[in-house]
Amino acid sequence: MRYWWVNHKQTVKQEIGGQYLWSPKTETNGARSEFYNNMRRASPGDLVVSYADQTIKHVGRVAEFAFTAPKPEEFGDTGAYWSNEGWLLPVFWTPLFPPVRPKAVLESIKRFLPSRYSPINPTTGGGNQKAYLASIPEQMFDILITNITFSREMLRRGGSNSLNYQVVIELLEDSIQRRIAEDIQIEDTIKKSVILARRGQGVFRANVESVESECRLTGVTNRSLLIASHIKPWRSCQSAQERLDGENGLLLTPDADLLFDRGFISFQDNGEVLVSPRIDPTDLRRLGFDRLVEDHFRFAMQPVPGRTRGFRSTQHGYLAYHRSDVWVS
Amino acid sequence: MRYWWVNHKQTVKQEIGGQYLWSPKTETNGARSEFYNNMRRASPGDLVVSYADQTIKHVGRVAEFAFTAPKPEEFGDTGAYWSNEGWLLPVFWTPLFPPVRPKAVLESIKRFLPSRYSPINPTTGGGNQKAYLASIPEQMFDILITNITFSREMLRRGGSNSLNYQVVIELLEDSIQRRIAEDIQIEDTIKKSVILARRGQGVFRANVESVESECRLTGVTNRSLLIASHIKPWRSCQSAQERLDGENGLLLTPDADLLFDRGFISFQDNGEVLVSPRIDPTDLRRLGFDRLVEDHFRFAMQPVPGRTRGFRSTQHGYLAYHRSDVWVS
Repeated sequence: MRYWWVNHKQTVKQEIGGQYLWSPKTETNGARSEFYNNMRRASPGDLVVSYADQTIKHVGRVAEFAFTAPKPEEFGDTGAYWSNEGWLLPVFWTPLFPPVRPKAVLESIKRFLPSRYSPINPTTGGGNQKAYLASIPEQMFDILITNITFSREMLRRGGSNSLNYQVVIELLEDSIQRRIAEDIQIEDTIKKSVILARRGQGVFRANVESVESECRLTGVTNRSLLIASHIKPWRSCQSAQERLDGENGLLLTPDADLLFDRGFISFQDNGEVLVSPRIDPTDLRRLGFDRLVEDHFRFAMQPVPGRTRGFRSTQHGYLAYHRSDVWVS
Repeated sequence: MRYWWVNHKQTVKQEIGGQYLWSPKTETNGARSEFYNNMRRASPGDLVVSYADQTIKHVGRVAEFAFTAPKPEEFGDTGAYWSNEGWLLPVFWTPLFPPVRPKAVLESIKRFLPSRYSPINPTTGGGNQKAYLASIPEQMFDILITNITFSREMLRRGGSNSLNYQVVIELLEDSIQRRIAEDIQIEDTIKKSVILARRGQGVFRANVESVESECRLTGVTNRSLLIASHIKPWRSCQSAQERLDGENGLLLTPDADLLFDRGFISFQDNGEVLVSPRIDPTDLRRLGFDRLVEDHFRFAMQPVPGRTRGFRSTQHGYLAYHRSDVWVS
């Protein structure tokens, strides 16, 4: 379990209200940022202090691993210079009474501030402009919220029902679908196909079936048991062409679809299977992927030989996206 | 593989155009009907001749097992006396050129007509008013469509992309959702919850989580991997109360959700698992349910002891519905 500190920018209201954090994947100039990379390091159960206006007003429990998602619509023009695709980290927030001003406890927390990537300036106690999600030691977290009315138990339980991956994805995709439905530049038949493609149906499914013939994880060929899944997620596609492209799809059984969509498994271009260190092997076994778990450990946590042929070169671009932006490494 | 004959009623256009057959489950007086029961006996790959206006104009390939579904909206007032819930059988239809008039070949097919439940009168050659879906021998099917321009290969391939359970369910549920959204008698907050419940989310999921704690087939407890499934399907519920009732839900992994929703598995009130004879054991194994297959055969194709406690009495009514109307026996 880890502890985090987030320096909100202009979108604190949306993030706290919407029960998440969202960041771009890179700096505006394309450079990787330690603070943005931290979004993918946070794990369910981690705790986060939320810092805005020089005050910590909320503490949150990470509800799910981060996943790739377009900039939330409710951000509006705020952060218009940010890239449209970023990391969304579901966090269940609860308010602190009274709020904490870190400057007031600067002397006690100073020695726990990390030397690199500190969220605040160790001398002035003011927020570090460049920081977003920063790792902090447990002792620092404890000092910050000592004496605060805040129930860890409530935080743990309160979030279990409200927030999960499926809910967040559903809301997010609903808003994208609304935008597509209202887009007057897209032809009606294309629009219909793109909306059907969200659930792996229609033209998209037919296109995938002409490229793939079976589930690459289980070998199931019975089409009634197979889902047409996007490799580059529907929500992250940039065009109708990408959303309907058969090369951007796999036929997967429902469990395999969830693991792939959630980024717990991915594929190399040669067909080898990547197993994320973040998925619990016990869960994988219960889902029936015993062989995958065994092979993963037999090959010393390396990619597992695929049960089908390698991918076509036309699929490689989508797979590269999946490995870099969907797979939870 | 079996052969069938359907005597369409007033809804031939809708059924052929919509690529399905739909029948009530019982006669108007509540009696079971052999012709309606046949809907559940048809299997993917079976062939059907479509008879209307004393002529066979189409032949179809059954695309999926029948499933419980409300009367298609497009039937309008036709068959208004029919019950609202019936069997929907996806069939991929293709036209025959030229159409066949069974009366013209009555002498050759006469001897193959079943003595009970015949679709036509063996003397007059006219359609049997009471018949809907009737079983016919292969020889009779062959005589009927000898010399007809009709490619079995086309029939086989043509249907594979267009029609599957997920597509049919999606369209059906879309139309129900539209009716709910337009219903001025339902409060807006309830409406929202009922629509979220379609995907196992919101209030419904929270309600289910307060009743069930793990997948009863796999033992998975990680909520990120669990779907809140309706026992009595969302599309078949009669009220918002049924659609939101936690007692009408199970937490299932995605594969288990598909098998349960599709009626390939069901449960006894004491928690024992029923395995449908219609699901291929090889598919079950590939989905990771090896133990279920083994136990099923070990207990001489009887119910498999459940891995969790029995159900609460408040769940029994929904389970009885699932066994009688969803389970593919």
